[in-house]
Amino acid sequence: MSENSFGRLLRVTTWGESHGPAIGCVIDGCPPRLKLSEDDIQPWLDKRRPGQSRYTTQRRESDQVRILSGVFEGQTTGTPISLMIENTDQRSRDYGEIARQYRPGHADIAYDLKYGIRDYRGGGRSSARETAMRVAAGAVARVILRELVGPQLLIRGALTGIGGQSVDRSRWDWAEVEQNPFFSPDAEIIPAWSEQLEAVRKSGSSVGATLEVVAEGVPAGLGAPVYGKLDAELAGGMMGINGVKAVEIGDGMGVASLHGEENADPIRPSGNPMEPAFLSNHAGGILGGISTGQPIVARMAIKPTSSILLPVPSITRDGEAVEVRTKGRHDPCIGIRAVPVAEAMMACILADQLLRNHAQCGWL
Amino acid sequence: MSENSFGRLLRVTTWGESHGPAIGCVIDGCPPRLKLSEDDIQPWLDKRRPGQSRYTTQRRESDQVRILSGVFEGQTTGTPISLMIENTDQRSRDYGEIARQYRPGHADIAYDLKYGIRDYRGGGRSSARETAMRVAAGAVARVILRELVGPQLLIRGALTGIGGQSVDRSRWDWAEVEQNPFFSPDAEIIPAWSEQLEAVRKSGSSVGATLEVVAEGVPAGLGAPVYGKLDAELAGGMMGINGVKAVEIGDGMGVASLHGEENADPIRPSGNPMEPAFLSNHAGGILGGISTGQPIVARMAIKPTSSILLPVPSITRDGEAVEVRTKGRHDPCIGIRAVPVAEAMMACILADQLLRNHAQCGWL
Amino acid sequence: MSENSFGRLLRVTTWGESHGPAIGCVIDGCPPRLKLSEDDIQPWLDKRRPGQSRYTTQRRESDQVRILSGVFEGQTTGTPISLMIENTDQRSRDYGEIARQYRPGHADIAYDLKYGIRDYRGGGRSSARETAMRVAAGAVARVILRELVGPQLLIRGALTGIGGQSVDRSRWDWAEVEQNPFFSPDAEIIPAWSEQLEAVRKSGSSVGATLEVVAEGVPAGLGAPVYGKLDAELAGGMMGINGVKAVEIGDGMGVASLHGEENADPIRPSGNPMEPAFLSNHAGGILGGISTGQPIVARMAIKPTSSILLPVPSITRDGEAVEVRTKGRHDPCIGIRAVPVAEAMMACILADQLLRNHAQCGWL
Amino acid sequence: MSENSFGRLLRVTTWGESHGPAIGCVIDGCPPRLKLSEDDIQPWLDKRRPGQSRYTTQRRESDQVRILSGVFEGQTTGTPISLMIENTDQRSRDYGEIARQYRPGHADIAYDLKYGIRDYRGGGRSSARETAMRVAAGAVARVILRELVGPQLLIRGALTGIGGQSVDRSRWDWAEVEQNPFFSPDAEIIPAWSEQLEAVRKSGSSVGATLEVVAEGVPAGLGAPVYGKLDAELAGGMMGINGVKAVEIGDGMGVASLHGEENADPIRPSGNPMEPAFLSNHAGGILGGISTGQPIVARMAIKPTSSILLPVPSITRDGEAVEVRTKGRHDPCIGIRAVPVAEAMMACILADQLLRNHAQCGWL
Repeated sequence: MSENSFGRLLRVTTWGESHGPAIGCVIDGCPPRLKLSEDDIQPWLDKRRPGQSRYTTQRRESDQVRILSGVFEGQTTGTPISLMIENTDQRSRDYGEIARQYRPGHADIAYDLKYGIRDYRGGGRSSARETAMRVAAGAVARVILRELVGPQLLIRGALTGIGGQSVDRSRWDWAEVEQNPFFSPDAEIIPAWSEQLEAVRKSGSSVGATLEVVAEGVPAGLGAPVYGKLDAELAGGMMGINGVKAVEIGDGMGVASLHGEENADPIRPSGNPMEPAFLSNHAGGILGGISTGQPIVARMAIKPTSSILLPVPSITRDGEAVEVRTKGRHDPCIGIRAVPVAEAMMACILADQLLRNHAQCGWL
Repeated sequence: MSENSFGRLLRVTTWGESHGPAIGCVIDGCPPRLKLSEDDIQPWLDKRRPGQSRYTTQRRESDQVRILSGVFEGQTTGTPISLMIENTDQRSRDYGEIARQYRPGHADIAYDLKYGIRDYRGGGRSSARETAMRVAAGAVARVILRELVGPQLLIRGALTGIGGQSVDRSRWDWAEVEQNPFFSPDAEIIPAWSEQLEAVRKSGSSVGATLEVVAEGVPAGLGAPVYGKLDAELAGGMMGINGVKAVEIGDGMGVASLHGEENADPIRPSGNPMEPAFLSNHAGGILGGISTGQPIVARMAIKPTSSILLPVPSITRDGEAVEVRTKGRHDPCIGIRAVPVAEAMMACILADQLLRNHAQCGWL
Repeated sequence: MSENSFGRLLRVTTWGESHGPAIGCVIDGCPPRLKLSEDDIQPWLDKRRPGQSRYTTQRRESDQVRILSGVFEGQTTGTPISLMIENTDQRSRDYGEIARQYRPGHADIAYDLKYGIRDYRGGGRSSARETAMRVAAGAVARVILRELVGPQLLIRGALTGIGGQSVDRSRWDWAEVEQNPFFSPDAEIIPAWSEQLEAVRKSGSSVGATLEVVAEGVPAGLGAPVYGKLDAELAGGMMGINGVKAVEIGDGMGVASLHGEENADPIRPSGNPMEPAFLSNHAGGILGGISTGQPIVARMAIKPTSSILLPVPSITRDGEAVEVRTKGRHDPCIGIRAVPVAEAMMACILADQLLRNHAQCGWL
Repeated sequence: MSENSFGRLLRVTTWGESHGPAIGCVIDGCPPRLKLSEDDIQPWLDKRRPGQSRYTTQRRESDQVRILSGVFEGQTTGTPISLMIENTDQRSRDYGEIARQYRPGHADIAYDLKYGIRDYRGGGRSSARETAMRVAAGAVARVILRELVGPQLLIRGALTGIGGQSVDRSRWDWAEVEQNPFFSPDAEIIPAWSEQLEAVRKSGSSVGATLEVVAEGVPAGLGAPVYGKLDAELAGGMMGINGVKAVEIGDGMGVASLHGEENADPIRPSGNPMEPAFLSNHAGGILGGISTGQPIVARMAIKPTSSILLPVPSITRDGEAVEVRTKGRHDPCIGIRAVPVAEAMMACILADQLLRNHAQCGWL
């Protein structure tokens, strides 16, 4: 039913469970003759990979991606690109409790209510492990964007808050993002975040976060009126990332308090009618669902990890009361590793919209 | 390219421009043998219709919907339902300025950058007039939900804030919503809102708003893992409503400050394993992208109307600097009339997911 | 469920019943800035229109098409094009028998088995009247092809046989097709066909036919491997025309008797590597699902009209035995009026594939 | 662009090239809680596997299928089912000629004209090897049909002609089909076919064939009016099988010579209004695009294998004239191994339509 696919012209279908033999995806619609190898994908997976700092899960997966089809002699052929990562760290363990009990905040109970069955090992299909394939697909989307648009198109994400402690935007430094284990653009907040996460971990709890993705150099004209709106697709894509509960474009919730003259971004001549100059970017780069050439700005809030050591009342599959404590290796703040995932979704959606624009308006 | 359709099994395709001869939609996939007539649709359109209070645009459209196909002897036949509303109030006027100038905050410039052409009369395809067809489709979706689920499924929306003045949730009263021109659930805030809107109008400005839609009685099991998530589809659908810049599910942005044990909704035995009892609803009724039986809660922020009398710097199609003042009949707060639209999107998305659930899990 | 739509990037959704107030379609994905008016569509509808000769139904519909959206100042805008034809000749009559009895060979019984309800007036949704909208959509597709490819792309259809009497291909003359009421490319067969149809009509019977559509000047590269094959889409589209029971591409059924060296079309240098010279066209212009630049050739067989005056055993809705004679105005040979419909399907499918090619390979 | 997927609710996406590391597919939309293991799939693959007789290619692939996801403890979970077969017999060889020359009748030239690149090893994506995944998907579809409909639903295929020598239908025996290497339902024609194929092989040529697939026990009501017609989807699916050039439903091309009273299948009371009795089956079990409960009958013609030892004139990638002789291991008659593929497509399309019927009409 295409419930495991996204994109229209760049169509990504993912498959796999957390503790099955492998996870993978099929990317259909990639233009031919693009240079592509595992080396274009692996670095992005490494960025997302667990076990890299004490603030993310200690599960150790090498996450080595293989290209199984669609590439010949180093170039895409236009046929579907199949990517696969074998699950190497499926620890043998007792799943008795997790099989019988519903972990509050988790998909366990919802899957059972819908399907009457679930692969409970490590969360099965609802595990964040699936997001590795979005990152892989995002890497392919970046190759498409680089070739078809150019290197000026830049997609970057950052963590902007943990548990209510937000970065100081006046100190925003993209270079800093790559230098710390939090993807923080603000070097000075790192001690406070470290301290908070240490306390959270010790207490057996977890904490929520906010993050932001910005795409610069996006050509004007991506998106479509009414039901193919770029902002609507970003909202759907971002809300589909595990744990995301809110998505904002541009000023987001803030627009509710603005007056019209504060919100409307003034436009000024630029010499190039195809690249108008805007004096502000409350709109987050999108008007009427279509990109204007300004930076695309998407923000989101991610809930605290549901798997915590602290007990939460719940029930078993048989409807009996139980207190659930979720042991095992879990990120105290899943928001951190969501940053490369959100970047990847932005890349996929932009590449898809770009191809759609080629289709309908490419002849102009 | 299906840019003007939404839904997978209940597929709605809309067409029409603000000042063309008519607007309409085609609803495909409606189950057969449901009682349906214009009387099931017209009341919802009337609720959204402009010109009903001083707080909405004074454009006067009778908005009489006609069913052109798919219904026979008062019942749906399973074939596509075509709905049409003629545009009766297309005032003849001079569009010279609007044709040449880009109204800041509007889709004008984005459409021209994409298509190189736009129907500038009244905003053309980007006009909020298109949302009348979503309301009409939502009315059909309500009929489907009522027949296939039952009358306990209740979808209701309310305005929760104007320009930063929010309702007091302790005074929330659904009955009140139908009693005032703001769809406010809090009777006591109405004087403040009235005063604010009066001031906004006098100053030639506009103001943003927040609103909320709640669906109660939704069966568990709607939604799908990964890319057909109910919350992701709601986010996409809601963000696609004209002017929406942020969407929240459940606690929304608030989850970023929560700890795991605060966020996870405890579950208690209820006697019926298919209808577990939850002690809170931070999740907004959705876990892992699938409904749990709790109320579905979606909130959104809508920007202030871009059409304002106050001047904003802009450019013409030829790239020359200009100050734009948008005359004409405009809602000072488009958030108000967005309430029935957001309700309709909720209805359409739930009905679509219900049919999808029938397809895959109906045999259980 | 998109059961009433076809095409991926040029997406056509039709609606309407034979005796409802109107029929129509929505065409989504049309490129912007193409010149388009009713005058580009009406001539093709006139070609298909009933009541033009004694060999087609005497139902008299003016079939005046109206463009309701998507065109502004004579040009397409890139937004959905809504077309509508009002049903003017819905004779008031007694539908008692047709409502109760299942006409053998008709969709009546299948619709009831599926939906439990059907609009029996004139066949409702299963009436060939729906094909008027395919012809209208085909006319828009022709405009797209003319602008994006050029006037050398030529789509033409012809009737090649009636009741076993086939044209002599050595006398094939495209100019002749427009000169006779049968769309026959062979002037000399017309007397025989006239005589046969006269006899068929007198006896209250009907007769089958074969037809052929040829598209010349189609650029190489349209189609896709595996599941988007041009020949597969043509087969699906043609088999979906009312009454079609067989579709052939190129040599069709004839390939079953060929040897490899007879079937393979030899290729010769042409000076232009993008336009190779083929010495024969057994393949019908398609290899591996992709056009080669040779003429695309599709043939099909259409069954005799199911509505006949001669009695055929059948049952009523209540399961009682009955003899059905179908009175009313019916084409003795529905194959004739299928010619412009088949042409239109070819045009729609080629235009759709062209846009898809732009999307994926347009950057090369 | 979904060019490598088929089905709407049971959605199959295939990937892989003939000589890449593996081929595979992802099946999305399978209902949960069906018993499924490799043992349900492998026998059908074995039936199609090359190297089983002297009449099929001598390439030796063990074709061992692995289920990589979507099945847990022997049951489907409702999440995507990933299947993979490793390519074990990729002989190292010199591809110099095949890389430079276009084999007439093959997809080589079309791929290059479209993509400007192709994986020429063994035909790459256009190799019939891809059909192994259709057979695998068909096996899953059979499991769905068996569980949701019952064992009375029976899908069987047979070869009906080779090079113009057709079976005698009066000797049709389904049991015989499993007993010979031709899938022939007529034991007596086997010596003639053997002799013909032996001669064809010796001469370095190949030969065309006809085949037929029949589905019995199909419930009435599958299919949809206008663009989701069961016959149209069968035609598209069958024409998409490598080498198929014609598809017939029911009487197929034969209807062109029939009169209305010969073609219309008379209906008689059966006691069960949901299972009417038909006195003939010219329609091939489908009326108005919807199944009637009668056997679904599809026939097709397959061209002779394009890879032959006999020389055919062609050109190189550089446009130079050349004579092509295709060495290597090839079926002299690809029609034989197409039988299980055609059966599989029938199974997939019926299962997909069944789920669609559940969605829209399941509530009746």
